Amino acid sequence: MTSRGAGGGGGLGSEAGVGSGAGTGAGADLHLELRVEGARRAALAQALRDAVRSGRLAGGTRLPPYRTLAADLGLARNAVADAYAELVAEGWFTARQGSGTRVAEGVAAAAAPAAPAGPAPERPRFDLLQGKPDPASFPRGPWAASARRALAAAPTEAFGPGDPHGRPELRRALAGYLSRARGVRTGPENIVICSGFANGLRLLASIRPRDWAVEAYGLPFHHGILEAAGVRPHPLPVDGDGARTDEVPARARTLLLTPAHQFPTGGRLLPARRAAAVEWARTAGGLIVEDDYDGEFRYDRKPVGAVQGLAPDHVVYAGSLSKSLSPALRLGWLVLPEDLVGPVLAAKGLRESWASALDQLALADFIECGGYDRHVRRMRRHYRDRRDQLVSVLAARAPEVRVTGISAGLHAVVELPPGREAPALAAAEAAGLALDGLSSYRHPAASGPSREGLVVGYAAPPNAVFGRAVGVLGEVVRGLEGGGG
Amino acid sequence: MTSRGAGGGGGLGSEAGVGSGAGTGAGADLHLELRVEGARRAALAQALRDAVRSGRLAGGTRLPPYRTLAADLGLARNAVADAYAELVAEGWFTARQGSGTRVAEGVAAAAAPAAPAGPAPERPRFDLLQGKPDPASFPRGPWAASARRALAAAPTEAFGPGDPHGRPELRRALAGYLSRARGVRTGPENIVICSGFANGLRLLASIRPRDWAVEAYGLPFHHGILEAAGVRPHPLPVDGDGARTDEVPARARTLLLTPAHQFPTGGRLLPARRAAAVEWARTAGGLIVEDDYDGEFRYDRKPVGAVQGLAPDHVVYAGSLSKSLSPALRLGWLVLPEDLVGPVLAAKGLRESWASALDQLALADFIECGGYDRHVRRMRRHYRDRRDQLVSVLAARAPEVRVTGISAGLHAVVELPPGREAPALAAAEAAGLALDGLSSYRHPAASGPSREGLVVGYAAPPNAVFGRAVGVLGEVVRGLEGGGG
Repeated sequence: MTSRGAGGGGGLGSEAGVGSGAGTGAGADLHLELRVEGARRAALAQALRDAVRSGRLAGGTRLPPYRTLAADLGLARNAVADAYAELVAEGWFTARQGSGTRVAEGVAAAAAPAAPAGPAPERPRFDLLQGKPDPASFPRGPWAASARRALAAAPTEAFGPGDPHGRPELRRALAGYLSRARGVRTGPENIVICSGFANGLRLLASIRPRDWAVEAYGLPFHHGILEAAGVRPHPLPVDGDGARTDEVPARARTLLLTPAHQFPTGGRLLPARRAAAVEWARTAGGLIVEDDYDGEFRYDRKPVGAVQGLAPDHVVYAGSLSKSLSPALRLGWLVLPEDLVGPVLAAKGLRESWASALDQLALADFIECGGYDRHVRRMRRHYRDRRDQLVSVLAARAPEVRVTGISAGLHAVVELPPGREAPALAAAEAAGLALDGLSSYRHPAASGPSREGLVVGYAAPPNAVFGRAVGVLGEVVRGLEGGGG
Repeated sequence: MTSRGAGGGGGLGSEAGVGSGAGTGAGADLHLELRVEGARRAALAQALRDAVRSGRLAGGTRLPPYRTLAADLGLARNAVADAYAELVAEGWFTARQGSGTRVAEGVAAAAAPAAPAGPAPERPRFDLLQGKPDPASFPRGPWAASARRALAAAPTEAFGPGDPHGRPELRRALAGYLSRARGVRTGPENIVICSGFANGLRLLASIRPRDWAVEAYGLPFHHGILEAAGVRPHPLPVDGDGARTDEVPARARTLLLTPAHQFPTGGRLLPARRAAAVEWARTAGGLIVEDDYDGEFRYDRKPVGAVQGLAPDHVVYAGSLSKSLSPALRLGWLVLPEDLVGPVLAAKGLRESWASALDQLALADFIECGGYDRHVRRMRRHYRDRRDQLVSVLAARAPEVRVTGISAGLHAVVELPPGREAPALAAAEAAGLALDGLSSYRHPAASGPSREGLVVGYAAPPNAVFGRAVGVLGEVVRGLEGGGG
């Protein structure tokens, strides 16, 4: 509660390199016991909270640089960065440009039951990690109005045990919306509400545990879900026109695709390849899982319709609110071929992995009253402006660099020549930028040449810092060019 | 859309015994293909929806009696009853006293995307199944006010990716509430928000997959979760004073208890047995999982504090909104010993089985502003009145029958002599009552004599029909006595 004393209690004396251009910080000796393998980031965050609560990390103490702690604990640098960001968001830590990450003052006391709320959360630094919509743009007023109307209009049984299938009001609203906005062909009965794409993927993997063809680039988290379900993955090459759907191996029974905007490389699946995928499904009796994670955000022409519309009996269409509105709602949907509805409901079970019925009713109202369309249109303009700003800054500062995947979505890829990704990431980190390298999205079983680049999420940073973040990115990329490859 | 034609299309001609006292209904030949083993009820409900959508079951068609369809499909009668109730709740079926369950008029058309909402749901009959709070008592106004305040006050990061640990606002509010109302000793950091007790149990079973001592009577759904996780169960005998915690076998590492109100037999765990459980945990290094499913509803004296308060380092306290407010929110919490927080977060993973952040924020406000306490007090009076009405009707109509477990909770047990449960259930069904037999809650691995009875949930029926439902139950029980055993 008093001065910003350096060091603090319990054998901790370290220098933070965040934002200070250092990143070397020798002598960091923060002792932490990680309790589990597995979700190491969560365990690290918990160990850090424990250290603050117990007083081992006193208020004002500077945390070690990510790379130092990561090396000490045998973790990925990003895991440490994420854990720090989480504790900043929760108010345990504070982060300030030029002063690194520190333990917030007074939080150990505030953690006691009767204490008031901790300090207001703030952003750690320049967060350009992909996958997050702008949290500041959540339509609080319109959503509150929908929630209030939905709560008043809900039938009594809506407050009862509920149905894993999802609220009928929401399934009706989604059937209409998806048909109109995404070209999906479905009725409400083929829609199953779930708690996000990961939940849906887990359900599908549990009922189709055999061979899946996947894109050679994708979210490692999704690869892990398939692996945990015992799926044998067969990565398909990916180029600027999406995945090579003409190369689905004979033994694959399921094909996971991101047709509207290949994740994360950014290509749109070529019409001929859409046709090839559907042809494969029809001929081989296979199933396509269409991850339409950001299909609503296309900037330079009308959105491409869903592949599902071509072959509703052979495609599962999966969507969620996680990009279009907020991941905090844990709300998604699967549009299923007739014969998969029963098995998916059975896999879902009777008591968990449902979305809140109240949120479901609120979303139904939000869609029906046009609020969802208005929000998506507003965000499309917002994200397009940011995309334009990113592209023009990079074009000005590093004209040689190719920026791809920019016609849609919430992220872009800054392509880099072989061997340049690692130094680029190090330079970005030293400059206080959080972002990922393209190679970390490559499927471990993929063959062929690897691609390098920076995956730049441009949706989430606050308006106040976005320009600066992009400027810093431009300097980093220009510096790379100067440094030669 | 026109007349209530009997029979309808596709080889369906059947009589419904629901509420008509028949229950024999020969000649029912509803053909259904169930697509999966496993959650058969969900599959049945889906098959029925399909039959309505496809027109095979025309509007106005009477459904076969539960027992007939159950026998045809090799399902439990309750599974059929539940599937019917679900379709009534969704508006596919209607149920009326004396006229049985019928396909609603016009729903096949309404299932098309652009159609308006289906008919308003209504209750199927007299639903005395345990486990459900009164859906009509959901505090819509106060909850809407909390949701609105919470949405306005939420920090920006609340709309971002979130934290599987749960919102800090809610963990702080719960730490205060549980300490005050249930004698739980915890800080916010030891609380992990989950999506209900089943979700919490699954997480715990995944990190403690070995031998568990369980109560000989409990929810089959919970037994199934443990079994699916590979847990070896050791049922403990249960009597009027709860489980025999002095008989925990040496190999058990975890002990699952319902100390406040043994489920479903209704005893309160004797102080000496609470002490024995804690002593076992301390000596054997074991873990107690305390399922406090209805701990807030005790009618004749102050609530008993949680066992967790005796030994916070050896007890996981588990609670949820499913009885106190509504199961539709899918919101629960685990209060964990320090060393289990990391493993549970790791088991939870980074992307699903979370409760909606907006609901979490609304609940935090609802607790902090006193709304939750007011609701619980109001419901305690409401349920106590219903309990009193049930007890007095049964005392008047069937004075010989013992009704137990009545000092707390949302259900009571009508004890029956050996051999009388099956005829009692048949008579109840014929009279249009939905309820379960006590023997269906017995753990399959339990030894010793079995107990028989009716488990009567008295919380959920609408006020308008509760008196009649209890009257019918009184007649059923009186008839049993007359029939002699």
